[in-house]
Amino acid sequence: MKKIVLREDQMPTSWYNVGPDIPGGLHPPLDPETKEPMAPEKLAQVFPMGLLEQEMSPERFIKIPDEVMEVYKIWRPSPLVRAYKLEQALGTKAKIFFKNEGVSPVGSHKPNSAVPQAYYNKIEGVKRLATETGAGQWGSALSMATSKFGLECKVFMVRCSYDQKPYRKSIMHTFGADIVASPSNDTETGRAVLAKDPNTPGSLGIAISEALEDAASREDTNYALGSVLNHVILHQSIIGLEAKKQMEIAGEYPDVVVGCCGGGSNFAGLMGPFVPDYLDGKKIKFVGYEPASCPSMTAGKLAYDAGDVAMRTPLLYMHTLGHDFMPPGIHAGGLRYHGMAPIVSALIRDDIIEPKSVHQLECFEAGVLFARTEGIIPAPETTHAIRGAIIEAMKDPDEPKTILFNFSGHGLIDMAAYDAYFNGELHDYAYPTEAIAESLAKLPEID
Amino acid sequence: MKKIVLREDQMPTSWYNVGPDIPGGLHPPLDPETKEPMAPEKLAQVFPMGLLEQEMSPERFIKIPDEVMEVYKIWRPSPLVRAYKLEQALGTKAKIFFKNEGVSPVGSHKPNSAVPQAYYNKIEGVKRLATETGAGQWGSALSMATSKFGLECKVFMVRCSYDQKPYRKSIMHTFGADIVASPSNDTETGRAVLAKDPNTPGSLGIAISEALEDAASREDTNYALGSVLNHVILHQSIIGLEAKKQMEIAGEYPDVVVGCCGGGSNFAGLMGPFVPDYLDGKKIKFVGYEPASCPSMTAGKLAYDAGDVAMRTPLLYMHTLGHDFMPPGIHAGGLRYHGMAPIVSALIRDDIIEPKSVHQLECFEAGVLFARTEGIIPAPETTHAIRGAIIEAMKDPDEPKTILFNFSGHGLIDMAAYDAYFNGELHDYAYPTEAIAESLAKLPEID
Repeated sequence: MKKIVLREDQMPTSWYNVGPDIPGGLHPPLDPETKEPMAPEKLAQVFPMGLLEQEMSPERFIKIPDEVMEVYKIWRPSPLVRAYKLEQALGTKAKIFFKNEGVSPVGSHKPNSAVPQAYYNKIEGVKRLATETGAGQWGSALSMATSKFGLECKVFMVRCSYDQKPYRKSIMHTFGADIVASPSNDTETGRAVLAKDPNTPGSLGIAISEALEDAASREDTNYALGSVLNHVILHQSIIGLEAKKQMEIAGEYPDVVVGCCGGGSNFAGLMGPFVPDYLDGKKIKFVGYEPASCPSMTAGKLAYDAGDVAMRTPLLYMHTLGHDFMPPGIHAGGLRYHGMAPIVSALIRDDIIEPKSVHQLECFEAGVLFARTEGIIPAPETTHAIRGAIIEAMKDPDEPKTILFNFSGHGLIDMAAYDAYFNGELHDYAYPTEAIAESLAKLPEID
Repeated sequence: MKKIVLREDQMPTSWYNVGPDIPGGLHPPLDPETKEPMAPEKLAQVFPMGLLEQEMSPERFIKIPDEVMEVYKIWRPSPLVRAYKLEQALGTKAKIFFKNEGVSPVGSHKPNSAVPQAYYNKIEGVKRLATETGAGQWGSALSMATSKFGLECKVFMVRCSYDQKPYRKSIMHTFGADIVASPSNDTETGRAVLAKDPNTPGSLGIAISEALEDAASREDTNYALGSVLNHVILHQSIIGLEAKKQMEIAGEYPDVVVGCCGGGSNFAGLMGPFVPDYLDGKKIKFVGYEPASCPSMTAGKLAYDAGDVAMRTPLLYMHTLGHDFMPPGIHAGGLRYHGMAPIVSALIRDDIIEPKSVHQLECFEAGVLFARTEGIIPAPETTHAIRGAIIEAMKDPDEPKTILFNFSGHGLIDMAAYDAYFNGELHDYAYPTEAIAESLAKLPEID
């Protein structure tokens, strides 16, 4: 069997919340002004209660609403695929499986959370969502989701992506979203940045500040974030829940679970549902691969920090490079974020997730090998998971083992990155040690 | 149930060949020089025997080789989806189903034939394939397929697409293909065209001539065509065979089967397997939708004509606008071809397929409606099938009926077309009556 496909009636009907199972627990988000735990009513200004309850929930399983299931079924359940040809090309005895999240309408795992986020806002009467997007994956997903639930959507798209990725813009436009390059003239934050530097390429940190300002300033508008937060990882658990069922049908169980890590949601979505087995004594290795140029897990500090440049977000206890760290311009734009999800950070602290970093060129090399063996071109972000799976397979190629990785998205909308690779325009970046030290020095002080 | 997904072990194991079931039969291809039926040994210069046997086969079912099945399983079986939200938006009592061929690694139905074509060439010792591509869908598919079987691939890509669609080029490049803009300096045909007009945008007819010349001039190289021919339609029958099983599981049977028609292979692939039921007395309507600007079925002549400008191909008995007809620059590049598959043409002649034409703007309007209701952005070609399905549904919206259409590909790699649509840069074209009359006057004379 090349791949395992579930029927719709075999889909998980609840998400799994890994939070309550984290041995050392999670730290609460803090108010950036008072440094005290964030008051729920303050968060309720920009998030619906349905999502806030999930963010804090002690429940291990939370039912997926029927309306969300209906939209999931456009592309879910997603296939679990055995990468026979990749295994052959590597000459490894490892069995390599991947969960193909590239089959969604926008080509990535992002709609797994965009759809429930749009839904919970919709049922609480919100008319409009504001969000930011860097590489464009999240903006595309939220535009699709809001169009399904009849909400308006405003996307602040980081200026350099806005200019370099016209297809992403067109996708959002086709779904009816309102897109603006960030920094924009639509917010105070944006105007202030533009006044200082009219030619700034923008950053995710600035775009988040703008989207939050937009949401806070309008009664009809909430804010939506595509990674990092607990409720996003909850929604992404559908990946791992399906994969567990599929591995069982295949008669396999993973020895190693691998993913790429930007904000952490796709990896946590896959590995989270395996954590209870791990805690029951099952031997599983969970390895998260991040870019060496933006190494929040392997070189960041576990501390309270803001999620954005303007420090409007709650302070989260996470692995961080500092909120004004500016990552080099690698092509895996979705992995260019200074922080790591509190859940992933806690699992690293508790020695459950092993963090590793990889360089850009070895990732593209792995991506091209994957395309030519398995027939599917991976997104630049996803090549990090593929390189990771190859590293795990080749540690001892004669040792039989089962590897499962998350194919977080296809690369068909990001082909400019492959062009740059083939044209020899890409290079590796050294660990940005000095820049990290500099930005870590500016972490907020917490008692 | 939103969609019906088959398991791999439920996949059809044979293709269905509609040719022998065509009541009025098929005319043989003629040698462009002698005007006599083409000698198989002449075709064998550019095609492997495995495909030539299929081209002429009197068998109704032909086994799919195991090696082809293994590659199909990267994405097949594809889902059959009920378009509930589109139905609601239309306010129709019709049930609308679509077969989602956009889930393939290159986003369209083209790999269904690219994979077996690469396979049959491979087992007969061919080292290299030459082909042409207009919109880029076929070139992407053949590049993927040849990379799977270790063949080299040379793609002559119509100059205007080569310049306008850099992502398509990058996809082929990533799969290891050698791509050149057509007309090129690599062939006599290309050099002759360039000498006359160095700035020509190229055409599919020229690119076919170049690919054929390349294949004929090299011992190690064969030619591959992505539509029109009988063996291509044979391979595409996997679409309809799966759809029949899926409709049965859904407890439905189509009253109307709809597709978009360029060369005819995706529509014939879906509708073909339903033809035996039709001949047994089942009431089914088969409706093929083509662009009004390139109306081979609705305004062409059923006659022998060449498939390319240089008249290197065998003469095929088909609906044609004349081999040097130059279609207006609509964005559904895959539908810009002067001829229609002999199989589709024969089914029109025998009153089994009803041909219709639609205009560009109404198609994009349908495509945007589909994206915002069903969540998936269709390729510009596919919007013709969607408009067709809507027309069929809305003829009498209160009449319950079941419509099945082929979602031949997604639009994520062709977003520039949607940009042009939203920017008001697209317009409709009148039926090109005069141009057709002119090119039809130059049809080859056959006794």
